[in-house]
Amino acid sequence: MEASHLTDHISRRYNKDIEDLRNSVMTMGGLVEDQLSRAIAAIVSGDSELGLKVASDDYKVNNLEVNIDEECSRILATRSPAASDLRLIVAIIKTITDLERIGDEAEKIGYLASQLAAMDRPSDSYRELKYLGNHVSQMLRAAMNAFARLDVEASLEVVKEDDRVDEEYDAITRQCITFMMEDPRSIRRFMNVTWAARSLERIGDHAKNIGEYVIYMVQGRDIRHTETSDHFESPA
Amino acid sequence: MEASHLTDHISRRYNKDIEDLRNSVMTMGGLVEDQLSRAIAAIVSGDSELGLKVASDDYKVNNLEVNIDEECSRILATRSPAASDLRLIVAIIKTITDLERIGDEAEKIGYLASQLAAMDRPSDSYRELKYLGNHVSQMLRAAMNAFARLDVEASLEVVKEDDRVDEEYDAITRQCITFMMEDPRSIRRFMNVTWAARSLERIGDHAKNIGEYVIYMVQGRDIRHTETSDHFESPA
Repeated sequence: MEASHLTDHISRRYNKDIEDLRNSVMTMGGLVEDQLSRAIAAIVSGDSELGLKVASDDYKVNNLEVNIDEECSRILATRSPAASDLRLIVAIIKTITDLERIGDEAEKIGYLASQLAAMDRPSDSYRELKYLGNHVSQMLRAAMNAFARLDVEASLEVVKEDDRVDEEYDAITRQCITFMMEDPRSIRRFMNVTWAARSLERIGDHAKNIGEYVIYMVQGRDIRHTETSDHFESPA
Repeated sequence: MEASHLTDHISRRYNKDIEDLRNSVMTMGGLVEDQLSRAIAAIVSGDSELGLKVASDDYKVNNLEVNIDEECSRILATRSPAASDLRLIVAIIKTITDLERIGDEAEKIGYLASQLAAMDRPSDSYRELKYLGNHVSQMLRAAMNAFARLDVEASLEVVKEDDRVDEEYDAITRQCITFMMEDPRSIRRFMNVTWAARSLERIGDHAKNIGEYVIYMVQGRDIRHTETSDHFESPA
């Protein structure tokens, strides 16, 4: 099924519940993006208070996940969706799990920012974490936009981008090891830097996962091969 | 709904498809347990070849995930399951995602084992990784057993156990930092140890997630609060 057909299908058949559900996912994505960008800002600016605020705000992301999850189960139970409706719900159930885990990583980065703020500051304000952080923020935004527009091409770009994030992460790790060997007193600090980098790299993985769910949602290999699926249209 | 009622319900209504699906999840769990125990053995015995074999076998886990995922979507589309049937499917969709990610972590541990095998060996054969590894292996097995038996009590134990895993992980990390500071030539090696420890800690997180899905599956707060759910029984 092509994206345009799927979009038509959605606009004709999805009722307000489904639209609300999609909007909730976008809201959750926006909240997670915000958490991530504040966590990065906390590292770059050495703002311990901001880092701790990000960490303590993670419950908001978790609450949204629980609400959306329950709404998905409710729609599955009461509307018996089939075909593309069903793929959307399954993709949402998976997407919000990844968004929740991006929230967890932002929480960790918030704590690390708070610890780094109390240590020696490098003259470049952790520029390499800022770059990597911006990179994965863009990936996350692109993944959520692709989700909103059911855009397979854009999703493939997100999936490909993850290799570049992994390369950046490897470079940061190698650099940290070099710094630690040169000055063992800096080990604790650079361990925190590598952990922040790893959390960012994981966020890239989660954004990639979301991109893959969009592709599944639009192309839906597994559902379109079941001959019986046409008999089970959702009661719109 | 109590566990015993849910079990009765399952035994009466679930057809062979559902039983096969549950068995596939247990098979996937067994494969992942095996991957994990071989990855730990590769670290402890310094067996580079075994480590690489674990890493190259990860595709088997991935294949099982895709197959089970497609089967879940097929059952959702063709049987329109409601209530406990639906919660089982949703829990399976989530469980196999966590199992697949445990497989990814085992793959990483396999690579790390291969790298550690080429470096200086400590006299204790990385005893702390062996302990942590056995700990999370037990958690994973307990989570899968709880899944098989729909055992909420056992699931709660798994969830609680994760705190002890986190403590062990923190202790290993602190120890590694101490060793690195004492002997900067060991930094690269102990970075690998901390990464292996972190992968094991993540596996504990995933086992905890599976425990939480079992609780959701049995207690199903979100479904049992919808008044309409009784009108949508699955066509057994």
